[in-house]
This record gives sequence, structure tokens and C-alpha cells, in this order.
Amino acid sequence: MNKIVKSLEEALKLAGIKNGQTISFHHHLRNGDYVLNMTMDIIEKMGVNNLTVNASSIFDIQAETISNCINKKIITKLQCNYMSKQLGRKIVDGILECPVEFRTHGGRASDMQKGIIPVDIAIIASPTSDNMGNISGKYGISACGSLGYAFADATYAKKVIVVTDNLVPYPLTDYSIPEIYIDYVVKVDSIGDPSGIVSGTTQITRDPVGLIMAKTAANVIKGSGLLKDGFSFQTGAGGASLAAAKYLKEIMLKEKIQGSFGLGGITSYMVDMLKCGLFKTLFDVQCFDLGAVESIRLDPRHKEVSAMHYAGPYSKSAIVDSLDVVILGATEIDTNFNVNVHTDSNGCIIGGSGGHSDTAKGAKMSMIIAPLVRARLPIVSDEVACISTKGEDIDVLITQYGVAINKKNKELKEKLLDSNINIVDIQDLKKKAEEICGTPKPYKSSGRVVAKVFGRDGDVISTINALK
Amino acid sequence: MNKIVKSLEEALKLAGIKNGQTISFHHHLRNGDYVLNMTMDIIEKMGVNNLTVNASSIFDIQAETISNCINKKIITKLQCNYMSKQLGRKIVDGILECPVEFRTHGGRASDMQKGIIPVDIAIIASPTSDNMGNISGKYGISACGSLGYAFADATYAKKVIVVTDNLVPYPLTDYSIPEIYIDYVVKVDSIGDPSGIVSGTTQITRDPVGLIMAKTAANVIKGSGLLKDGFSFQTGAGGASLAAAKYLKEIMLKEKIQGSFGLGGITSYMVDMLKCGLFKTLFDVQCFDLGAVESIRLDPRHKEVSAMHYAGPYSKSAIVDSLDVVILGATEIDTNFNVNVHTDSNGCIIGGSGGHSDTAKGAKMSMIIAPLVRARLPIVSDEVACISTKGEDIDVLITQYGVAINKKNKELKEKLLDSNINIVDIQDLKKKAEEICGTPKPYKSSGRVVAKVFGRDGDVISTINALK
Repeated sequence: MNKIVKSLEEALKLAGIKNGQTISFHHHLRNGDYVLNMTMDIIEKMGVNNLTVNASSIFDIQAETISNCINKKIITKLQCNYMSKQLGRKIVDGILECPVEFRTHGGRASDMQKGIIPVDIAIIASPTSDNMGNISGKYGISACGSLGYAFADATYAKKVIVVTDNLVPYPLTDYSIPEIYIDYVVKVDSIGDPSGIVSGTTQITRDPVGLIMAKTAANVIKGSGLLKDGFSFQTGAGGASLAAAKYLKEIMLKEKIQGSFGLGGITSYMVDMLKCGLFKTLFDVQCFDLGAVESIRLDPRHKEVSAMHYAGPYSKSAIVDSLDVVILGATEIDTNFNVNVHTDSNGCIIGGSGGHSDTAKGAKMSMIIAPLVRARLPIVSDEVACISTKGEDIDVLITQYGVAINKKNKELKEKLLDSNINIVDIQDLKKKAEEICGTPKPYKSSGRVVAKVFGRDGDVISTINALK
Repeated sequence: MNKIVKSLEEALKLAGIKNGQTISFHHHLRNGDYVLNMTMDIIEKMGVNNLTVNASSIFDIQAETISNCINKKIITKLQCNYMSKQLGRKIVDGILECPVEFRTHGGRASDMQKGIIPVDIAIIASPTSDNMGNISGKYGISACGSLGYAFADATYAKKVIVVTDNLVPYPLTDYSIPEIYIDYVVKVDSIGDPSGIVSGTTQITRDPVGLIMAKTAANVIKGSGLLKDGFSFQTGAGGASLAAAKYLKEIMLKEKIQGSFGLGGITSYMVDMLKCGLFKTLFDVQCFDLGAVESIRLDPRHKEVSAMHYAGPYSKSAIVDSLDVVILGATEIDTNFNVNVHTDSNGCIIGGSGGHSDTAKGAKMSMIIAPLVRARLPIVSDEVACISTKGEDIDVLITQYGVAINKKNKELKEKLLDSNINIVDIQDLKKKAEEICGTPKPYKSSGRVVAKVFGRDGDVISTINALK
């Protein structure tokens, strides 16, 4: 028995590809991924069309291929958790008839598990595989670290094809996803461009506004009462979020606080906190930089977790349910604390929820860091153009002009009253923003719906409209 | 959110236990397990009855509790992969109306996966757990090492209760089974008797007959052509099997052969081969002794695997599919190489297939080691009383009077012709046995069927009859 197939085309044929099916991809190779494009090129040559593509996230490197496939009706439906701006622009321009379905990282995994979004063929780009499909992202020239999001694809798709550029003798001891789910293994020259897979390093902001907000965020965490032994934390890879982690680290070291776990997409800054003993564990669903990839390969305290374990709402519990604090971003936030991370202030798609809603729901305190004004547009408004995460799951907004606390979290407000933190009403932040920028005209387009945003529990919580 | 429930009774109530359900148990605590008995005692007090108990294996420590529950109609159906002789005797005495269902280790996992044997409530005895049910068998006073068989119970049961005597702060970093499957966690004083969970050491036979057979087995492996770099191997914990591993080790060291993996229930002897560099990996579905428990805790090359990965016939592949050689035992073997490991020569149940059929099916060469005569009864006969593993999956029988090769494996016979191995016809072995013992009267009872033996593919391949 041997699962190696001589070409991806042959594997697709063996998997029984046909018109109308759903093909899934994961995004751990990020903007270095060659596998989605490679697969769609082959599918185009095979003459298969009317496909649904479910890609956990879509990056600029894939925009041209996907829009080409949409134009030719090879792809007629798209499902994803995140879409970067090149394809996002085309979607709001209306190139795809059927609305894009956006899910959360946890919601996608759970919807696969429940059979709500069945996958016919999953394509797993894997930096290392043996001939039977025991796979890992930790080794090989295209190493990306965690394969967290791909667990759902492998587990629930009818047929699963592994595409690798590093085939090793059986068995791959330190596998992430076992052979039990894999049908075929294809060796190709390269699955990705290492420089696009992970950035060399993620960078702390040097912007003074970002640093002020980061320091404030760290002080809010300190003041919240959550920063004590056993503290758990997630932050993104944005410059201000990383700076907040840096200030938090200083406080934890000074006060000798030993946290329990760091979670999420993992950066070198979180690895550094692990190495300093500030966390006993890192749970990693996606590595953001080379430091994280090296750490997950070498340090047994740095554990890969599946999307179901990270954040699956259908799981009996997920790690987000035990999370104390998450720091998140926003392109917009409204006075009810609803957050938009899908569209920019021009209504263009530039992102997606990813783990935003998942962690906001689970964490004891969900914090948004955002400058009050971006590109001369206010970030705080009466109503966001697209709700990515509902205000009921957000506790606090950090801006350079003060900290607004969601009134649902009375306890937090009381705790912070004695601190030096500048607590303001979110209505006042809105006014301040409008003083600076003027009142912007509402830009919610009246075009047809081009995307639906599913909350992590499976309801459509928002839509995005075409700009033309 | 917290899954800790104050008592096992409370957890069973929350899980909605009621008459007629199926309750499952795993057997990693072996003859030291307190949890099955504890659970059944509580269920008896709760007044629940007409249950199916699916226990991956049943040991003597559980015989009295189970037979008591059968007498009181609390248990009306039993499913297991192995049953030791105390309960086995009672089953062939006819205490249970409905025939026991015996499966293989791989078959049980796959039948759970396919929903053929649905489980309402799984009880997972776990040597360590955190409050959310991330569990491991590697740590704690009751450490048993691998929890390989429990993965199926956790993954596929409707409700899952963890019973532990070592509750640790969240998160348990080095978990085996994640919280995503766990509903409730119960802390008890003790889940088992360490001296029964694992024997201190497993012992190589000192019996000269056993040593002769073991040496012969090692020479057959050498002669088969399979013993080369990349060699993979499974052997049981029986004295002659372990001695065969010892001789194999000597050959591998002398000839500088580096194997790929050792598989199975793991003993210190396999650990020693790993440490000597004779395997690059151990895949462990169950630890047989303290040395194995220590190794799986400390050595990252020693990997825990689920029953699905070990041997699941419904998995897209399992490790047994890549196995070169397995050494297995037999209570009887017939001239068609059908093997019995369920009943002794008196027709009493004393075991079960476990991984016997799974590995015999998967391995390139399946070897049986058995003395020609045991307790003055011949081991080779015209027809075994119970077929545990079909002759089509067995390649060779090693006895102290010579080696019989299944005629289906012509290649092996040719390869061994040039060696010094005493190759004999299995009919001659039967005659020799009868010369020693006389021709035994057939003992297959004509009593009603008390057990059905399912092959790993789900068909009933044999039955066991009542002795009264």
C-alpha cells in the first residue's frame, strides 16, 4: 500500500473530481502559497467547473488565479474566513454572482464537522509528508509550523490529497495530522515561497500613537484584575498589539506573575514570553513568523492545536473558552461596540473575522486597539458598515484619546476607576473623531449583496454590498 | 465554564444515563482498574439496567462486578476485544443470555466511527486531567502511558466522562486527548492500583523450549529478507516473543540494521531497541510495563497513537498496513493456519483477538510462536475450536519441532530453503503433536452460542459455545 500518486492531476482524477463539487484549502503558507494556484490551474486544464472553493483564508498571491476562475465559471462559490484586499476589491466590484460566505476560524471547523459545508476534496499543502500521509508543517524548506486549520479539512473531507515538497521515509515520527485521513500524496517541486510563508520577523510598532495605545492596553489588563498567576492571553501580529504584549511582559516580569497559556496565531514575542517563563504553554493554530516556526519544532511546551480545539463552537469546549484576555484590531467600531474587520472605510473587503469573533466570545476580556482616526477617517461611528464581531462580545476599546468600556461590563469599569486610565464614553470618542475629521457621509453601499458574514454560531450577522 | 462535577453519579445523571444505553470503558489500567467497577456500583445504586457494556478489554479484577451486574440484568449485553479467564469461565457457563461480541482493537474503533456500535456514555479513566478534560495517561500516580484505545470512545461517544485521580491546573500542556470531546470531569481518590496497571517489568522466558523457538523466530525474520534498513516490527509481551525480540536485537546490532518503527503494545524491550537506535520511532497504543510508561513520557520518538491510527480498518490507512513483521501467540492453530486466541483447549474463554487479527492482516509476515504441546494437549489440530485470526493472514508457525510455512507464501519458503531452519509441513507438526499426546477428542461444545467473534472487517468469523 502506498498513497503516492505521480501528479496532482492524477490525484484529482482518483479523488473523482467533477463539476459542482467543493474543494478546500488551508492558508498556513499564507502569501507564499503555490498550492491553491497550482491546483486551480490543473482543474482549469481538466475542464472541471462550477466549483465551490472553501479556503480558510485567501491572500493576494491567489487573487489573480481565483478571479480568473470566477470569470470562467470554474469557481462559482467562495467560502473563506479572511480575504486580503486584491481579491476583496474584485468581490465588491461584483465579479462573483453568488455571495462569498465568510466564517470564523472556529465556525468553519465546526460547520465542516456538522456537515453544513461538506467538502468533496481537501487539498492539504504540507511542508513534510511520508508516503502514507503522516504530515507536519514543522519540517522542510517550506516549513510553516502549525497546520492547525487543516485538521478540519483532513478530518471531514470525503477525499484528502496531500501536496508536499518534502517527502520523507515512513514513518514521519513527529506528525501533526495522521495518515488515517489521507487518500493520496503528491510530491511537487515547491509548495511555496518561504519569504511569503512567514515573514522573517513580526515588528513592534514604532509609531508613538501605537505605543501610547499599547501601554494603555497593558495598564487596562493590569487594572482588570485578570493579570495574576494563571493568566492567559492572545494577541494578534499587528504592531500595536505586539507592543502591548511587550509592555505586558515587563509588568509580568516585574510582578513575578506566571501565566498559564498564550494562544492564537503565534509570533516570536509570544515565544519570548514562553521562554521567560511567563506562560507554561503556547497553543498555536498558526505561526506568524520564523521564530514561532522554530519554537514549535523544538519546544514541547509550544503545542500545535486544531481549529476545533482552538475555537470550535461545536466542540464540547475550546481553548478560547478558558482565555482571559484577547487584544484585537478593528477597521471600524460603532458606539454599540460592534466591530468591523471585513471592510475598510471605503467599503472594500480587506480582511475577515478569522479568530476575531471566536476569541472575543470566549475571552473574559476582549479588547480592541484602534487609533481614533485612520487616513483622515474616524474609526468610531454610529454604525459600522459590516458587523464582524458583535458588540456584546467586546469589553473595551483602547484609543490614543482614551479608553471606552462597554456598559455590559460594569465590573471592569469599577475596577479601572481607581487607576490612572483615562476612561471616556464611546460617544465622546465618536465626537472627538468627528471634531478631527468632520462627520463622514455614510458609505454603506446599496449595491447587491456580495458577501455574507456568518457569526461563529452559524447565523448570518451581516452582509457586504457591491460598490458598483 | 468548568466541567468538574462533584461525583461520578452526578456526572452520569448529567450525561442522561438511562435503561438500555451503551456505556464504554477502555482498558489501559488493565488489572489495576478501579473505574469500571466503581461506575457499575454507582449504576446499580441508581437503579439503571439493561445496559450494553463495551469495554475494550475485561480483566479478572472486573469479573465479579460484571458477573454480578449480569445476574441482576444491569448488564444484558457485552462487547469487548479481550476477556481474561475469570469472566470467560462464567460466560461459557452461560450466565449471559445475549452472546458476547468480540472485536479486534482496530475493528472496535472503526465500528464506533461508523456508528455500528454507538456509545451513549464513555467513561475514560485518565491518570491526569485538567478541569476542561485535556487528558493524558503519562502523568500521575496511576500513570499508564498511552491512552490509545480511549481515543475512539472519546471521539465517537455521545457523552464523555473523564474520571481522574490527578487533577492539574489548566492547561495540561502535554495532553493526549483534547477537551473538545469531553463533557464532564470527575475527581476520585484513586482510579487504580499501580501494581495492577503495569507490571514492574515484563520478563523474557527462561524456558529452554521458549528460547529455542525465539531463536528460530529471529532466524526466520533474518532469512525472510525483510530484516534490512527500514524494518518495522511488532511483538507481544509473552516470554517467547520478548526473547525473539532480544535475539533480533542482537542480529540488528551485529549487522548494523536500522529499523523504522516498532509498534503495538510496547514493553521495555522495544524501548531498549529504540534507545539502541534500532528503530527511529515507537508507535504505542498501550504500555505493558513501567519502562514503556517512562519512555513515552520522556522520549519524543516514542509516540502515542490512537486505535484508529494503529489498526483501524476504516481508516484510510493504519500503521499496521506498513508493518513488516509481527510475532503473535496462539492457544491453538489448525492445519489451515487458522489461529485461536479466544479459548483454551478446554473451550473456556481466556483472551481475545485484541490486535492479533489487525496486525496479522497488515504485516508482510505474520508469525505464530507456540510450543507444539501445552498441558499435554496438542496445539496443532485439524480444526481450531474458535477462529480468532484466519489462516489466510498467517505466514508461518514456529514450534520447537520445526517451522511450518503457509503455502500461500511461496516466496518465504523459497527464501528459507537455503537457511539452516528446520522447515516442516504443518501436517507433520500435527502428527508429531499427536504422537506425544495422543489424538485428543474434539472438544467443540454443542451448547448454545455465548460469544460471536467479529473479524476486523466486521463479519462474524467464528462463535464460541456454552460448555453446559
